[in-house]
Amino acid sequence: MNYKMVIHTVGQVVLLEAGLLVLPLLVSLYYGDSCSMAYLQTIAIAAVVGSLMTFAVRPKNHNVFAKEGFSIVSVGWLILSAIGALPFTFSGDIPSYVDAFFETVSGFTTTGASILTDVEVLMRGNLFWRSFTHWVGGMGVLVLVTIIAEKLPDRSMNILKAEMPGPIVGKLVPKTRDTSRILYLIYLGITVLVTVLLVVGGMPLFDSVVHAFGTAGTGGFGIKADSIAGYSPYLQWVITFGMLAFGVNFNIYFLLLLRRFGEALRSTELWTYLGIVAASVLAITINIASMYDSLSESLRHAAFQVSSIVTTTGYATTDFDLWPEFSKGILLLLMFMGACAGSTGGGLKVSRVVILGQMIWAEIRRMVHPRAVSVVRYEGKMVDKETQTGTATYFALYSLCIVGTFLLLSLDSFGFETNFSAAVACFNNIGPGFDVVGATGSYAGYSDFSKIVLSLAMLLGRLEIFPLLLTFIPSAWRR
Amino acid sequence: MNYKMVIHTVGQVVLLEAGLLVLPLLVSLYYGDSCSMAYLQTIAIAAVVGSLMTFAVRPKNHNVFAKEGFSIVSVGWLILSAIGALPFTFSGDIPSYVDAFFETVSGFTTTGASILTDVEVLMRGNLFWRSFTHWVGGMGVLVLVTIIAEKLPDRSMNILKAEMPGPIVGKLVPKTRDTSRILYLIYLGITVLVTVLLVVGGMPLFDSVVHAFGTAGTGGFGIKADSIAGYSPYLQWVITFGMLAFGVNFNIYFLLLLRRFGEALRSTELWTYLGIVAASVLAITINIASMYDSLSESLRHAAFQVSSIVTTTGYATTDFDLWPEFSKGILLLLMFMGACAGSTGGGLKVSRVVILGQMIWAEIRRMVHPRAVSVVRYEGKMVDKETQTGTATYFALYSLCIVGTFLLLSLDSFGFETNFSAAVACFNNIGPGFDVVGATGSYAGYSDFSKIVLSLAMLLGRLEIFPLLLTFIPSAWRR
Repeated sequence: MNYKMVIHTVGQVVLLEAGLLVLPLLVSLYYGDSCSMAYLQTIAIAAVVGSLMTFAVRPKNHNVFAKEGFSIVSVGWLILSAIGALPFTFSGDIPSYVDAFFETVSGFTTTGASILTDVEVLMRGNLFWRSFTHWVGGMGVLVLVTIIAEKLPDRSMNILKAEMPGPIVGKLVPKTRDTSRILYLIYLGITVLVTVLLVVGGMPLFDSVVHAFGTAGTGGFGIKADSIAGYSPYLQWVITFGMLAFGVNFNIYFLLLLRRFGEALRSTELWTYLGIVAASVLAITINIASMYDSLSESLRHAAFQVSSIVTTTGYATTDFDLWPEFSKGILLLLMFMGACAGSTGGGLKVSRVVILGQMIWAEIRRMVHPRAVSVVRYEGKMVDKETQTGTATYFALYSLCIVGTFLLLSLDSFGFETNFSAAVACFNNIGPGFDVVGATGSYAGYSDFSKIVLSLAMLLGRLEIFPLLLTFIPSAWRR
Repeated sequence: MNYKMVIHTVGQVVLLEAGLLVLPLLVSLYYGDSCSMAYLQTIAIAAVVGSLMTFAVRPKNHNVFAKEGFSIVSVGWLILSAIGALPFTFSGDIPSYVDAFFETVSGFTTTGASILTDVEVLMRGNLFWRSFTHWVGGMGVLVLVTIIAEKLPDRSMNILKAEMPGPIVGKLVPKTRDTSRILYLIYLGITVLVTVLLVVGGMPLFDSVVHAFGTAGTGGFGIKADSIAGYSPYLQWVITFGMLAFGVNFNIYFLLLLRRFGEALRSTELWTYLGIVAASVLAITINIASMYDSLSESLRHAAFQVSSIVTTTGYATTDFDLWPEFSKGILLLLMFMGACAGSTGGGLKVSRVVILGQMIWAEIRRMVHPRAVSVVRYEGKMVDKETQTGTATYFALYSLCIVGTFLLLSLDSFGFETNFSAAVACFNNIGPGFDVVGATGSYAGYSDFSKIVLSLAMLLGRLEIFPLLLTFIPSAWRR
């Protein structure tokens, strides 16, 4: 293992964070709240630690193989969260460091699970930073590093692979850095568009920016106790379509930019995603119709909540914990599935669900015609055996992780529905679950042990298990 | 499809059932209760229907390929349950036919889920038949048919494959009929042993026989409102070890009979099974220690409940729904895993869990060393890609079925814990779940629609999905 390269690159992540922390500092200074000092202190710490790691450790060779890619991403995300949590504690808004760490991991992993019982008392600087972590974590912090850092060789594709979700990661263009740049430009573009649409609808600028961050990263941190419920129907619809848009594979937008419309619209994943969303919205609208004044209101809530959950954002316009069990059941399934690969959403990913579905169908045909060759296709191409086994194995490991998280949470004092939905909602980076951790609840009641378990679950889910697992299971390195 | 052969063979199943129904008739006559007429009527119906199917439909060729095997088993089990439910309704003990059908499916699939709120009011004949269905369903009714029927060719291995659980079904000896005969002799032998040990411990003969049936089939129907709680610790331990014994792959017993001890004791599945049982018992004993008077009492309850759940039996010595969430969490996981392949237990099976675990490990190594070849081994042999994909795909389909069952149950009036555990407990053929359907509860409160959904879930689980799925998805037959 090229340890020096790992330390060197993680140092760059920390330096980048020092730079990113300037934004909440400016916000804090602008609004004149009392958390500026906390940000100054954190920036100083990040600058010193980052510089030491980057400049004191000079790797002789700059090779980044799979191993190094995994380690850089795992260690990078952990340090990023550890330092990012400091301002919350320094400023006194979140006195417990474990709580602040949970909140920051929840931010970077775009989960949106919160230990805050009243978000509205937070200072503006902290509110901004909390939502900004969503935006940074959404597209990936190392993707950002590959754009900025000069020294990284083109082998840094291995870093991207470790950070970007989905079973198949391809480059849009031959150079990794150009791919990263294009992705971030698309990301920035749609974020700005959402912000503008919110401002146009009468949402204050600060609110618009933080909600655009939360929508873009499919995170879900808001600034109101009732999440999005207090905003106008127009604003709720903007966020609905915004969330759906960020749940789409970014390759589609790239193809659209290149005017390759036909190719973009042939995507199986896109249509499966939209089809499942439409079917879920329809079913829930009917199921909850009697709870609201008009059909258009239930449609709005159903569309908002389905988009929020399927993209793993976690915003709410209504307390969906009060919905009938059937609607909650649909939401639970959407939590597992998640959004498209190559989007900012979490979960198992639509692509994996499609591949697993195709595999089941192939297995059924194989049972009936044992001697026939059953081919699994995805996006018009044949899926090789390696990817099939990989996808199915990922599903098994994914189930194991959720089950393990659930079991560890069971040591705490809450009931089955709370623990199970907390494990599912954190691992899939959604945020709110049901019961105690439902839309109007919070994760505050869990013990520190459970909060650390959930923080690791969020990281495992965001990085799709392997990077963390491989970094912290040394025996995996041996043959 | 060879329809004539399917009808002909299912006819033999029905005739066999007519024969089996003579036993509860004799019990009823012996105890002089008032359900004898119900059994006489049902025997008459089964005899007529079975004869018509067997003797009126004469297949020209006796080939049984995979298709026919699946259809025979699916249709056979459905008709078996439909007819087996009649005595309960005819005798008035279970007036609703849907309830009686649920109870009978639960019996044959060795689930043990009950719609009875008070089992103790049932007549002796019905109590006997209810438990006897466990015994017949445990080893498989078509396995029994292959022993008795003269006309079945040796291609009937395809019937066995469809009915016997586990990813890899092998013959013990070259001839299918001899394999079936050996399996049933072992099965009968251990059942008699358990009965004797219970009688020796002071349990009345009738109680001993029905509990031996429930233990052997890993079913779980008892005759007391408090299941096994009212019997002595000795009797509870006998049933504990009995259940564990029937959760072991029967191949092991065959090897032991042949004195091939070394081969028998090298089984990965056996040691994984026993290891997981031991670890679970230990963890639960500690977790529930404060709830009972002595450590030996908590050990007894923990051992009993772990064995009951892992083998998917479902007996109880205590209301485990009152246990701490952690212990309930472990039980929930054991519900998913189930017992060994080739045993009478249900669930995913230990063998599949082992293969999935090995696949995860191979995938981890492949991530680290992309160019190395990762081999998955099971029981000392290499697992080919086909079996790997098959196992992983089965897991995905299995998850999908449980999730689908859960969603349909959500349309009913109960809460999350009840619906989720009911889906898990029925699909894995366990019986009791948590909350409303917990150890002291029943499935009586569900609507008829939910009861039919759960009946199908039990059948899907017992027959490992594919046979039913393939029989009722006609498009699967086309190319």
